[in-house]
Amino acid sequence: MRQTSKKAIISYQGEPGAFSEQAGLAYFGKKCTLRARETFDEVFNDVVRKRSRYAIIPIENSLFGSVHQNYDLLQKEPVFIVGEIKLRIRMNLLAMPGVRLRDIRHVYSHPQGLGQCHDFIRSLPNCTPHPFYDTAGAAKMIQEEQRRDAAAIASSQAAAHYGLSILRKSIESDHRNFTRFIILATQPARPARNPKTSIIFATKNIPGALYKSLSVFALRNINMLKIESRPIVGRPWEYLFFVDIKTDNRTPECRNALAHLQELASYSKNLGSYESGRSVLNP
Amino acid sequence: MRQTSKKAIISYQGEPGAFSEQAGLAYFGKKCTLRARETFDEVFNDVVRKRSRYAIIPIENSLFGSVHQNYDLLQKEPVFIVGEIKLRIRMNLLAMPGVRLRDIRHVYSHPQGLGQCHDFIRSLPNCTPHPFYDTAGAAKMIQEEQRRDAAAIASSQAAAHYGLSILRKSIESDHRNFTRFIILATQPARPARNPKTSIIFATKNIPGALYKSLSVFALRNINMLKIESRPIVGRPWEYLFFVDIKTDNRTPECRNALAHLQELASYSKNLGSYESGRSVLNP
Repeated sequence: MRQTSKKAIISYQGEPGAFSEQAGLAYFGKKCTLRARETFDEVFNDVVRKRSRYAIIPIENSLFGSVHQNYDLLQKEPVFIVGEIKLRIRMNLLAMPGVRLRDIRHVYSHPQGLGQCHDFIRSLPNCTPHPFYDTAGAAKMIQEEQRRDAAAIASSQAAAHYGLSILRKSIESDHRNFTRFIILATQPARPARNPKTSIIFATKNIPGALYKSLSVFALRNINMLKIESRPIVGRPWEYLFFVDIKTDNRTPECRNALAHLQELASYSKNLGSYESGRSVLNP
Repeated sequence: MRQTSKKAIISYQGEPGAFSEQAGLAYFGKKCTLRARETFDEVFNDVVRKRSRYAIIPIENSLFGSVHQNYDLLQKEPVFIVGEIKLRIRMNLLAMPGVRLRDIRHVYSHPQGLGQCHDFIRSLPNCTPHPFYDTAGAAKMIQEEQRRDAAAIASSQAAAHYGLSILRKSIESDHRNFTRFIILATQPARPARNPKTSIIFATKNIPGALYKSLSVFALRNINMLKIESRPIVGRPWEYLFFVDIKTDNRTPECRNALAHLQELASYSKNLGSYESGRSVLNP
């Protein structure tokens, strides 16, 4: 489901240079138009109101877990998942051109960026880490304030965008750091290969309810890739389940499984089938 | 498993006046000694190194979901869950004595506090919300800086602690707002009634692995109360499962279920059995 039209507009959350922008370029190619938004609500809204044809959002990081706000928005908003891409997150130390490593006294990044580069930051003498709202936002601030005593931890894309130099590449402690992004649209996709399907459901208040709900897949040999639970607002200690299964919802066994799930669930929503994402290394 | 000794020290995360402190007082009574810590790592460490006999930590909010950092620490640290309490979260508008509602131009709180009181804040003319690291920390700042143009959204405990007035009570939009706290210790409890048991496990890489793992409980009519998944660091797209079941691990059926789980799991940890928590209203 790669996009070929040059004019497709794709919304993402963050400043230009954010990892979501990199994921969008890797998925859609350099000719697409990426639209930066401040919040995930705005990103979803762009798609629902057809201001953008697609959106690309992070849904899960392999070290930190799921982006729960986006799970909640997937349930609320009338969107389908139409694609997926996994981006290897490489963190870089960015500074004003001419600034040397020994000039750096302050490092700015998103708390997760600081956490991922904890060992590197500790190796810099007299250097203080400062949490910032966004990795690319930290790079933007360094450039706008022309800070020569500080660096940002962000993507290479952010370096290019704000005219900063890359002082050190790949400074993260754990290189097995991937973020999984999904692509949203108002119409479902028809994946040609490697399909997966995402479903949301709530169970009826019966004994063994979740076990019985999962049996609709297990008894048909449909493999489950992920399960995530989220609270139901207004019903304390009851949950919505978000399940990814390895199948296409156009197959008879998946259609039967979903019909069977209806018998057991008090609520369900089919987020659609899409091609499983490949893993790419950010530049 | 209520504590009766006067000298038991209980660690919690946050400033004095935090909701965790309220939960600790509600669980242990007014005679215990509560020790404020900046981070959850320090709170766990206090128990593990026996600097405190217990810790009380938030594990789940009925509107916002689980506190994932604490799930990760439960897996890493050698602790048991020995008790539980559910606190109804009541948010109040706190200001310096003598300040009136019409003087307020700025409101400070944790982002969740601001979110929960969104409707109320919007009803105040010319008032700007500001995210702060902590609800009680916002109250502390108002007092320290003697701000007469600003208010904090925090607990009534925080008002008492920092000498602030409660301008408005219970300003949250959704009153079905509970936080579930758990009590940690280095030795397991022996609950007298209403037991629940918490287990962590990772599945082997076999088809239907999670379904089969849950069968060890379902086939023995052991009810599952909650399931939470967290990433396994270093093994992208593999997960640990945190499961709460309605039973005592001293019963034969639970012992059998856990032995059966060992056959199917590549890793498991028993966090212990404890009495299900009652719900209390904060003052």
